[in-house]
Amino acid sequence: MASKARVLYTFEAQPGSGELNINENEFVTSVFAFRWEGKNARGETGLFPATYVEDVQDVSSPPPVSAPIYPSIPGIAAHADLSAQSSWGVQAAAAPAATAPAAEAPGGDWDDEWDDDSDNDQEQEKPRGGAVAGAADKRTDTLTSASARSQQPQQYDSMMGGSQALATGNQASVKGNLNRFSVFVKSGTENYLLGKLKAHVPDGSYVVISETEWGPMWGTNGKAYTCQILSPKKESKMKGLKTFIAYQLVPSFNGVQVARRYKHFDWLHERLTEKFVLIPIPPLPDKQVTGRYEDDFIEHRMAQLKLWVNHLCSHPVLSQSDVWQHFLTCTDEKKWKVGKRAAEKDELVGGGFFLSTKAPSKGITADIDGEMMAFSNFVKGMDNGVRFVHTTAAENAKRHIGPFKREYEKLGEAFRTLGQAFDQDPIKYSSGLTEAIIKTGETYEGIGRLFADQPRYDTDPMLDTLHIYRGLLASFPEILDIQKRTAQKMKESEKLADAGKLSMTDLTQLRARSDVVSYSVMAEMNYFHQARSASFKSMMENYLEQQIKFYQTIVDNLKQSLSAYRDL
Amino acid sequence: MASKARVLYTFEAQPGSGELNINENEFVTSVFAFRWEGKNARGETGLFPATYVEDVQDVSSPPPVSAPIYPSIPGIAAHADLSAQSSWGVQAAAAPAATAPAAEAPGGDWDDEWDDDSDNDQEQEKPRGGAVAGAADKRTDTLTSASARSQQPQQYDSMMGGSQALATGNQASVKGNLNRFSVFVKSGTENYLLGKLKAHVPDGSYVVISETEWGPMWGTNGKAYTCQILSPKKESKMKGLKTFIAYQLVPSFNGVQVARRYKHFDWLHERLTEKFVLIPIPPLPDKQVTGRYEDDFIEHRMAQLKLWVNHLCSHPVLSQSDVWQHFLTCTDEKKWKVGKRAAEKDELVGGGFFLSTKAPSKGITADIDGEMMAFSNFVKGMDNGVRFVHTTAAENAKRHIGPFKREYEKLGEAFRTLGQAFDQDPIKYSSGLTEAIIKTGETYEGIGRLFADQPRYDTDPMLDTLHIYRGLLASFPEILDIQKRTAQKMKESEKLADAGKLSMTDLTQLRARSDVVSYSVMAEMNYFHQARSASFKSMMENYLEQQIKFYQTIVDNLKQSLSAYRDL
Repeated sequence: MASKARVLYTFEAQPGSGELNINENEFVTSVFAFRWEGKNARGETGLFPATYVEDVQDVSSPPPVSAPIYPSIPGIAAHADLSAQSSWGVQAAAAPAATAPAAEAPGGDWDDEWDDDSDNDQEQEKPRGGAVAGAADKRTDTLTSASARSQQPQQYDSMMGGSQALATGNQASVKGNLNRFSVFVKSGTENYLLGKLKAHVPDGSYVVISETEWGPMWGTNGKAYTCQILSPKKESKMKGLKTFIAYQLVPSFNGVQVARRYKHFDWLHERLTEKFVLIPIPPLPDKQVTGRYEDDFIEHRMAQLKLWVNHLCSHPVLSQSDVWQHFLTCTDEKKWKVGKRAAEKDELVGGGFFLSTKAPSKGITADIDGEMMAFSNFVKGMDNGVRFVHTTAAENAKRHIGPFKREYEKLGEAFRTLGQAFDQDPIKYSSGLTEAIIKTGETYEGIGRLFADQPRYDTDPMLDTLHIYRGLLASFPEILDIQKRTAQKMKESEKLADAGKLSMTDLTQLRARSDVVSYSVMAEMNYFHQARSASFKSMMENYLEQQIKFYQTIVDNLKQSLSAYRDL
Repeated sequence: MASKARVLYTFEAQPGSGELNINENEFVTSVFAFRWEGKNARGETGLFPATYVEDVQDVSSPPPVSAPIYPSIPGIAAHADLSAQSSWGVQAAAAPAATAPAAEAPGGDWDDEWDDDSDNDQEQEKPRGGAVAGAADKRTDTLTSASARSQQPQQYDSMMGGSQALATGNQASVKGNLNRFSVFVKSGTENYLLGKLKAHVPDGSYVVISETEWGPMWGTNGKAYTCQILSPKKESKMKGLKTFIAYQLVPSFNGVQVARRYKHFDWLHERLTEKFVLIPIPPLPDKQVTGRYEDDFIEHRMAQLKLWVNHLCSHPVLSQSDVWQHFLTCTDEKKWKVGKRAAEKDELVGGGFFLSTKAPSKGITADIDGEMMAFSNFVKGMDNGVRFVHTTAAENAKRHIGPFKREYEKLGEAFRTLGQAFDQDPIKYSSGLTEAIIKTGETYEGIGRLFADQPRYDTDPMLDTLHIYRGLLASFPEILDIQKRTAQKMKESEKLADAGKLSMTDLTQLRARSDVVSYSVMAEMNYFHQARSASFKSMMENYLEQQIKFYQTIVDNLKQSLSAYRDL
């Protein structure tokens, strides 16, 4: 969805309704789908129906990234029109890097909020970094952590080019200095590889990777569990002066309810992203914007958080991580602070995490370059497919709310008008027919409302899953880049050893560490296939079930309407 | 439907397909709905999809008639946008008068065609009156007979005004001379009233009107029957040089099949219209235009003719008329010619028909002015409703064929693309899911095609019924005008009698004849309510049945698609 839209039809706001006057051909800044909040050319903000505007590129942004071309993927057409939707990546790239060490984040922020809630995240959003909160800003807000390490669409291509260069032995472009600002370096993965990192790993904190029939897989270090999210509660602080929404989480392993606010999720997301460089963390749902559809919004956000939480609970590594366990179980304020500081001071983050990873001791013999290339192609193709479905489904939902609704309502109005005309027959000939026709009109008007109401049951949940997967997919190019640079480092080291500049002992240790990285990437790749299969099965099933229910309701209503004629 | 349309999207014809290149923003002359044949700005004609153009007013025609305002009908909104669809009436007014005596029609035309078929009405249309056959001309072609005596929308108002003037005793505008060109005069109704018509009425040719609980009704002068139309046959003359379509009619009373061509229907329509001034004759379906969808067209026309024939078979007077019986039963060529000449020389046509009408001898005591006023209001309201449903349903069909189809097809394409992307997974994880998603894609693409195919089952039959009723309703203002002028003539005569200028005997005879006219109008009004109740019941039932079937098919297809996930 573009952050700016051109107004197709003039819309007159009702006074006092929070609606916004928009004029044909002016551009609006969008904030929230379907019923959009936005800013018009005169700087006024308010709500307006999404169907009154059409998406356009943000004209003040850099020119849109052209659609990546995937010559290596047969059977998948590159949908050029999807490039118009790529502002997600563009915006993410402009957001502040979330991979900066936690120590650099404004320190007392959390505690201040925890102890004395000074803002109201149910009603308002606190601008970040002093930037004026426009629509683009709000969108990037929640995508920051997940997307900061994500790549623009071109980077799929540059990554791809890099892999090919590696495969053909052309390493001319690979210089140490060029890597200085890569996540490979910044995350500490390079330092880990070079054996420069040391940290104490407590017993029970190790993550184990095993060889399975599907290849290397994360070990399940603990019992599987789920987590419920109950109806969120409106809570208040400072004698009711400040209100906020607290989501109630109940993990299945202890049944103890904890209350967490959106900002707590946000903090957790930042911790996870910084700790697990090779494990994509799903993006959080958007923050709320001011609006009158509060209950609908909160219910939808709860559904989105449920998906997010489910993803963490299902992941063999994430589900067992200390920070997540702390988030999920801590009910004591003091203990919370202790755990919070421990998470922020965790040494086993980024490259340090590999110190706690136990990979198979057998050296990797598989054609790892080939596997990475194939997976990279898969990610590109899946990203293309996910974007296509996302765009199409979002458009479809708009049509449901706009033109489809109007179409059926108009048909209904026409039948009702005809029935009312029959009702003017002075001799009231066949008044049962007259009533039946009026009823048919009302039935079609009702079907129009059903159309408008339907997306919340089928399309919205689908878009929520796709949103998560767009975030996950966007993380892979960087993960694969880390693997590529690791392999390059190994080749350089082998040359150094050949030249007698590196001892065989050092080379062996370096290879073992390199294998830990490669095993981790492969384990996450394999887990991803498992996760996306489960997610998309569930997504498609829900979509089809809801679609069937929807059309079945139409059939039932029409049958009811038809029966009125049978009785005549 | 307007006779001109503005092109929304450029459409490139396939060479040799009969399709037409049209360019955005040019105007086309439309001929046939949905798949339109038309003429572009460069004078070329051919077929193009209806959804590529939007209706506009015929810019070369007089400005569109504004929507009539119906202040006297509560609960019925005047739909201003319907006035854009009123070209029907406008065109009809410009068509040659079909009420001209048959003797004035070109004489040998029929016989020539009957004996030696010199044109080919399946493939081509013979231009009438030397006019270039544009779309408007083709449309009026079949509307001529029914619509020549129909009124423009304003005439509902002028008629209404006339009735009001009558009711308030203001007769200043009623002068004999002004009536000279009215159908009241031209049809011979005035002459009949004045006792100037004489003709022999054979026994058994009388039409009887009886008083019933519903008011005066046409007597049923003969057994009720129905008539089948079987699949039309392509027949040929002159050793195959000339081909034409012959529709096979089988009346239920004798089971003998007769073959009739469209031109025979046309001739019959002209006879019926001229004979029955107070009985609306339904309009025939449009003539065929050149096109490649021949079979579809012929099938649709058969369905339309079936409705037309059913209407005649159901009408107590029309069903028993000699000319219709001759049309329905004559299989001998020589006898046909005799019957044809007899019909064309029938003296009991127009005003003469009243000579064969036996009304109750009891003088009319009902408030006939009030009844006429109420019926006039009813006709206006029903016409409004019928037009609204007609316009909306036609638009809806266009949407089915265009945007709805595209919407579902695009959704299908998106799912299919996602499935194909999953198929690129090198380890083929959960290939059953991949297949299920591809299948879901194909299901939605199929639903798109179902949408496009649906109007022929639900909307087309509805439009056919509405077409007939638009024609019937358009006839009533003139019928009511004849009644109004008859009443005026009576009042004038009463004044003359009061002034001693007319004998009481003459006045009594005049009143008896005036009652025959009034009884006839009331009988037809009452029959109309009976007929429209049956027609609209059947129309709505068919529409709903087909809609139910349609949505049920969608449900079934989606269930089938869902089952592929259940088995994983």
